[in-house]
Amino acid sequence: MVKRKIGLPKRKKKVSRVREKVGAAPGTVSYLGTKEKSESLVFVTTYDSEEVETKEHKRLEDILQYQKDPRTSWINVIGITDVRFIEELGQGFALNNLLLEDAVDTDQRAKIDEYDGYIFGVFKMLYLNENDEIVPEHMAMVLMANSVLVFQEVKDDVFNGVRNRINSKSGRIRSRGADYLFFALLDAIIDNYFLVLEQINHRIELLEDEVYADPKPEVAHQIQLLKKEVLKIRRWIFPVKELVSRLIDSESPLIKHDTKLFLRDALDHSLEINETLQIYREMSMSLMEMYMSNMSNKMNEVMKVLTIMASIFIPLTFIAGIYGMNFEHMPELQYKYGYYVVWAVMVLLFIGMMVYFKRKDWL
Amino acid sequence: MVKRKIGLPKRKKKVSRVREKVGAAPGTVSYLGTKEKSESLVFVTTYDSEEVETKEHKRLEDILQYQKDPRTSWINVIGITDVRFIEELGQGFALNNLLLEDAVDTDQRAKIDEYDGYIFGVFKMLYLNENDEIVPEHMAMVLMANSVLVFQEVKDDVFNGVRNRINSKSGRIRSRGADYLFFALLDAIIDNYFLVLEQINHRIELLEDEVYADPKPEVAHQIQLLKKEVLKIRRWIFPVKELVSRLIDSESPLIKHDTKLFLRDALDHSLEINETLQIYREMSMSLMEMYMSNMSNKMNEVMKVLTIMASIFIPLTFIAGIYGMNFEHMPELQYKYGYYVVWAVMVLLFIGMMVYFKRKDWL
Amino acid sequence: MVKRKIGLPKRKKKVSRVREKVGAAPGTVSYLGTKEKSESLVFVTTYDSEEVETKEHKRLEDILQYQKDPRTSWINVIGITDVRFIEELGQGFALNNLLLEDAVDTDQRAKIDEYDGYIFGVFKMLYLNENDEIVPEHMAMVLMANSVLVFQEVKDDVFNGVRNRINSKSGRIRSRGADYLFFALLDAIIDNYFLVLEQINHRIELLEDEVYADPKPEVAHQIQLLKKEVLKIRRWIFPVKELVSRLIDSESPLIKHDTKLFLRDALDHSLEINETLQIYREMSMSLMEMYMSNMSNKMNEVMKVLTIMASIFIPLTFIAGIYGMNFEHMPELQYKYGYYVVWAVMVLLFIGMMVYFKRKDWL
Amino acid sequence: MVKRKIGLPKRKKKVSRVREKVGAAPGTVSYLGTKEKSESLVFVTTYDSEEVETKEHKRLEDILQYQKDPRTSWINVIGITDVRFIEELGQGFALNNLLLEDAVDTDQRAKIDEYDGYIFGVFKMLYLNENDEIVPEHMAMVLMANSVLVFQEVKDDVFNGVRNRINSKSGRIRSRGADYLFFALLDAIIDNYFLVLEQINHRIELLEDEVYADPKPEVAHQIQLLKKEVLKIRRWIFPVKELVSRLIDSESPLIKHDTKLFLRDALDHSLEINETLQIYREMSMSLMEMYMSNMSNKMNEVMKVLTIMASIFIPLTFIAGIYGMNFEHMPELQYKYGYYVVWAVMVLLFIGMMVYFKRKDWL
Amino acid sequence: MVKRKIGLPKRKKKVSRVREKVGAAPGTVSYLGTKEKSESLVFVTTYDSEEVETKEHKRLEDILQYQKDPRTSWINVIGITDVRFIEELGQGFALNNLLLEDAVDTDQRAKIDEYDGYIFGVFKMLYLNENDEIVPEHMAMVLMANSVLVFQEVKDDVFNGVRNRINSKSGRIRSRGADYLFFALLDAIIDNYFLVLEQINHRIELLEDEVYADPKPEVAHQIQLLKKEVLKIRRWIFPVKELVSRLIDSESPLIKHDTKLFLRDALDHSLEINETLQIYREMSMSLMEMYMSNMSNKMNEVMKVLTIMASIFIPLTFIAGIYGMNFEHMPELQYKYGYYVVWAVMVLLFIGMMVYFKRKDWL
Repeated sequence: MVKRKIGLPKRKKKVSRVREKVGAAPGTVSYLGTKEKSESLVFVTTYDSEEVETKEHKRLEDILQYQKDPRTSWINVIGITDVRFIEELGQGFALNNLLLEDAVDTDQRAKIDEYDGYIFGVFKMLYLNENDEIVPEHMAMVLMANSVLVFQEVKDDVFNGVRNRINSKSGRIRSRGADYLFFALLDAIIDNYFLVLEQINHRIELLEDEVYADPKPEVAHQIQLLKKEVLKIRRWIFPVKELVSRLIDSESPLIKHDTKLFLRDALDHSLEINETLQIYREMSMSLMEMYMSNMSNKMNEVMKVLTIMASIFIPLTFIAGIYGMNFEHMPELQYKYGYYVVWAVMVLLFIGMMVYFKRKDWL
Repeated sequence: MVKRKIGLPKRKKKVSRVREKVGAAPGTVSYLGTKEKSESLVFVTTYDSEEVETKEHKRLEDILQYQKDPRTSWINVIGITDVRFIEELGQGFALNNLLLEDAVDTDQRAKIDEYDGYIFGVFKMLYLNENDEIVPEHMAMVLMANSVLVFQEVKDDVFNGVRNRINSKSGRIRSRGADYLFFALLDAIIDNYFLVLEQINHRIELLEDEVYADPKPEVAHQIQLLKKEVLKIRRWIFPVKELVSRLIDSESPLIKHDTKLFLRDALDHSLEINETLQIYREMSMSLMEMYMSNMSNKMNEVMKVLTIMASIFIPLTFIAGIYGMNFEHMPELQYKYGYYVVWAVMVLLFIGMMVYFKRKDWL
Repeated sequence: MVKRKIGLPKRKKKVSRVREKVGAAPGTVSYLGTKEKSESLVFVTTYDSEEVETKEHKRLEDILQYQKDPRTSWINVIGITDVRFIEELGQGFALNNLLLEDAVDTDQRAKIDEYDGYIFGVFKMLYLNENDEIVPEHMAMVLMANSVLVFQEVKDDVFNGVRNRINSKSGRIRSRGADYLFFALLDAIIDNYFLVLEQINHRIELLEDEVYADPKPEVAHQIQLLKKEVLKIRRWIFPVKELVSRLIDSESPLIKHDTKLFLRDALDHSLEINETLQIYREMSMSLMEMYMSNMSNKMNEVMKVLTIMASIFIPLTFIAGIYGMNFEHMPELQYKYGYYVVWAVMVLLFIGMMVYFKRKDWL
Repeated sequence: MVKRKIGLPKRKKKVSRVREKVGAAPGTVSYLGTKEKSESLVFVTTYDSEEVETKEHKRLEDILQYQKDPRTSWINVIGITDVRFIEELGQGFALNNLLLEDAVDTDQRAKIDEYDGYIFGVFKMLYLNENDEIVPEHMAMVLMANSVLVFQEVKDDVFNGVRNRINSKSGRIRSRGADYLFFALLDAIIDNYFLVLEQINHRIELLEDEVYADPKPEVAHQIQLLKKEVLKIRRWIFPVKELVSRLIDSESPLIKHDTKLFLRDALDHSLEINETLQIYREMSMSLMEMYMSNMSNKMNEVMKVLTIMASIFIPLTFIAGIYGMNFEHMPELQYKYGYYVVWAVMVLLFIGMMVYFKRKDWL
Repeated sequence: MVKRKIGLPKRKKKVSRVREKVGAAPGTVSYLGTKEKSESLVFVTTYDSEEVETKEHKRLEDILQYQKDPRTSWINVIGITDVRFIEELGQGFALNNLLLEDAVDTDQRAKIDEYDGYIFGVFKMLYLNENDEIVPEHMAMVLMANSVLVFQEVKDDVFNGVRNRINSKSGRIRSRGADYLFFALLDAIIDNYFLVLEQINHRIELLEDEVYADPKPEVAHQIQLLKKEVLKIRRWIFPVKELVSRLIDSESPLIKHDTKLFLRDALDHSLEINETLQIYREMSMSLMEMYMSNMSNKMNEVMKVLTIMASIFIPLTFIAGIYGMNFEHMPELQYKYGYYVVWAVMVLLFIGMMVYFKRKDWL
């Protein structure tokens, strides 16, 4: 039984928010997501091959000073509802307002924009929550000369692997610059997509088993939900391939040749993800087809039972009906063995029918 | 129940108008829309970072003088049925006749044409009227050195946001030229598409609920209408993506580098709209599939009821028929408990059948 | 009722003609169409901004002299069955034999070929005959320095608009050269496609109404015919888009920059035609889907009637059968009100069934 | 009835041959076809504008001497099973071994390879055998400085047209070089595809008629066979388009500018063939759809007959059953006209039912 | 009966392994496959046109010395579970860590990466195991100046053909360098794909026969499995085409012009494989369609039997029911030949029905 709700959390009404946004000037930084407004938390991890430190900052000036730090800084802003703070931060780092608008626009599709002096990217982080539901989370990153500025809606553990590698002194990441950090975060996001794909695969296999075992209408509904989910995930993931490829072709001095080798690897992974999603899409279409064919089989089986029952007993009932007639002159009725003869005829008819249906392979 | 009419207003007969047009010389400016002929209204908004003023003009000379105004002018022509006026206006601004033909051709698909000294664009404005119907409206814009000439069929509020931003002294738009105004208007049109998409999404969700709750033939009809509507909207919106991208690549001096950053944003939005429409298309196809699968389920259910009733009572009726025969020699008829035995046999048969159907999961 | 035959005139047998052609040398000028052989008529319209004259010529020398005429000449050859005449004419104008072969090959798909000194185009003219059938007609045009040579199978009125514009002194066409004439003829052909599309649209709407009102097998046949017709029209029209675009990109001195602006307009129209055809194709596929869904609905309805009748009366007949048995010991038969009780039971059963089916929404 | 076998001759087992080939060194010349091994026949036709002669040669030296002949030679090798002879011939003409491998590999897909000094092409010749079956035949051609070397499996008449043109003194082919001969042969192959397409078209029309007249299961099978055949033919023909286009773009000195004009014509034809095949593919899919819809119609008709019969006679039988009961107290039984009243009720019921079904359009 | 399991070996659970990998630094060499950890075996075959020798080595130093050998070396590493050994080997040959990561990543899709001084490729080797199941095996190759380094999971016989050709003194491979060896191995892999395709083809033909002979639900399941398998194989094979084409376009000095001619041949083969897979995909879709149409046919047949039985005997039973009524005044009952007349009527009705159904082609 597929009782568990498949994947996507419930649709939220956001009509009014879109209406709000329409008509606003482009570059207006306004939060459209569903999180409650709260203060942003800022964690900064600074490291070079010698040392690492992670601090939480509240004051803008403290954060801005990292621009001058020769070490690599990962400035992680958690919570993007406090639009005014984001705007000030952006001005502090001399970031374009359009960029800030996209950074807090939770509906923004994945994108990479190159500006003079920095590269900006928006990605969808997909992860599984405690109910194994697939949750999309908006994420924005700015690669600057020696720091990466990351905007997240909530703190989550997708980046924990990167954190661990930074903290371990031997990690290659320690001896490389901000562009490698940018890549490492992107790579963590893409790696996470594989977990989501696995979850989808798991669901496809479950539904496959159900389609064969017990194709209830509920299963058709589940398949449609799955198809919809694959469509949505594909939409979130699909652009990543092209974005990474554009990063590789970029002539920006911010990305070193070395890091491009790693990006090529990330490109490989995103190609693979897209192919896998394509296959899942075709599989879910096959599932529906299989469901319909099983429905059709069941109908056939039902019809056979009906036809067998009706074809056997309707003629027999007719014979019984004949000898239930009340004509005064019906010679058979007086025959001594008339009744037994009729029974014999009926049994023969019954056997004949059974043989006929057996031959037709309906039994 | 989906009683409310889905979306598109009724088809208008326009055969004769097309026939009229066929055979006319290219560049013949003639109005083919369905609006009654009336005088055009011309509103001109002139602004720079210091001041704004909006005036209504009736005399052509007054309008043409804005060409020499150093400030940015938004010349909004409302009503395009007065073809002679449009032609004179076009000659006043030295515009190509082909352009004027497209400006008043309400069937013209979205396009961007670059001429020496001006850029011309046609777009479909989609908005929701008071009945929440999706209404396409023809719209043409000419970007000139320091003015934007806009042709509209009727005055509507899609551009109100832009108007407000011009009127508020702090608006960024005030300090930028005609190219930014051109972009801002285009952006307002694209933003409006999102409202239309939301409306479509809403309808898909309504139909989804109906398909599961009560898949009446009417629902199939509604789904087909939806598919048709998505097809049409897609046709109106689809070219926008490429047009914006061509604007970005344009080498015309009319569009400053700065404005291109904003256009890049508009491109992002039109890409997103196209992807969303694609998803809606697939969803509406899924809806039909789901409808068919639900129909098939219902048929199965009907057939099961028939089969169960027939399979249980036809054999029982046969037994009753046997003992309704009038043979003189039917020993069972004289048995004291014959009647009760027959009842017993019937009840056993009934129970057996029920168990059989229960096992087959038909009950 | 769709009694009227949908669109395409009857298939003609042309197997033997193809066989004739196979094996012939390339460049062999031979007529493969279905028209009876007859003499070609040649009408020449010569004009400049001052004067126009139209003459019919029979002698080859008279026609060839127009090559030296400084005015623009439109040499219209009507009837392409007289292959020898066409060949002599071609040699007179120094045209390549391959070109002549295509000019009279009524199966040739639309094409544009640039030769040194002239540009050659083949197009399909689609027009509606007196029965509103869509008739494809082969048409070839050669653009030379100051004349356009047109080959047509029959004289028709698609070019009447162009003729009128040439005859009216004020027409822009009068002051422009042969390349504009070439464009104007091409534009007339493309404009005519819109009439054909309208006809198709009309048929789609008729079929849509029938599918909902009365989905008879005949309607399915009509839909298939429509799909086939759209396929064929698409094949004739589809290449035009690319051909016009190639003309625009052509570096031939025969086409002036000015005329290219007009060609851009023609390109727009052919793009629109292709998009519309695409939509019609999807609509006709939707029609078939809708037809199938309506068939399925009807089947469901039929099955429900059967199930209701059988489910109500089979059990009742069983009860009647019970008391039709001839056992000697059947106490109920002696009961005074037995008969009425049985009736009561039957009526109750009947009502119960009705309520059950009502609840299931089958009534 | 479609009794005649549709198209493709029976599948041959060739598993073992493939296994043989796998593991062999590339460039190993080995025959994989199904023809019996036999000696190759070599016919050489030499011609210039003055004279033609055709000779059969057995000795390799005789054949190789044509390399020095200033006239154009068409060296036609019939039978490619004698691999050793082919290899020696190839070495004599200094041909690459990879080329020879492809020349005798009957599974090789169509290809054009340019080598220094010669151009090599493999094509599939499709022709209709005496049973009107479509037979694919492997064919390879090498264009050298002044000769064309042709490898064929069997001698057939596809090239007869070319032979005739060479033999007739006035033929244009006589005054042109080996590249024109190469083109002429290619053109003959492509022309022949049209005959195959006609055959397919004929089959589609036959099946169309059958689908409407008598949609037996056999017809569905025939449609599937047709689809499969179109798939296969498409695969053989599809690459030709690109190959011809590559020949046109080739910078090889072997192909003169003049001949490219003719190749452009061949390109046109191959484009048309591909489009036609695409249409046939969609038509065959439509056929299946139509078949399914006709099946569905038939089912509907069957169900209606059943429902009408059952709905009319089951209630009537119930009434008869009522008065067949043996209750002692059934007042109606004693009524004088009871029997006639019952008949009247039955007739009314019958008429009522008929009217009901008439109204539902089921009769 | 298709009892034999179709193709793919059972899915292995590898969720936990993916989770392990997610979060690891890129370039971390870790084995993710399902083989038990074991020591790698290294076989080195060294050859030039004079001599060949094959040795098994255990010590790293022995293997590394082949870098300086002027002869061509094929270094075959069998078993990639011993990650530490692979890493040391890689460092010995100065290979990038990312490369090593991919070399042991059994989920890596096919790829070609060019590095300075070497070219790296990953491919899927598909072969048939003893149960005729299609087994994908991960394979990586590094082309270096004069050696090819091959990583395999298990030793298999796909490369036996290459081995034989190296061992036979006359083999062309002996006189060519490492790039030809690289090509020969790649060619062996691609050739092997043909065997897999043949297997698929065989299964399609088996299923085709079953669909026509006996379309059981099991067959639908088999068809779905086949579709899934084709999808998967396509995914493994699809990239090869592009990779080979990239090798041909590569400007790396490692690949000589000569070898590119051979690569062009391999490209041809991979194109053909892709086309064949595409055809198989469409064929498997046709199979499902055919299955559904056969199901529909069977249903029709079942319904016809039911309808014929019911339509014949329900009216007859009704007549018998009439004369089973117990009215006192039923004149027919007293008629001397009443009984025989009723029989006659019944027989006539029966014959009439039979004729009717015969005419409808239901018998």
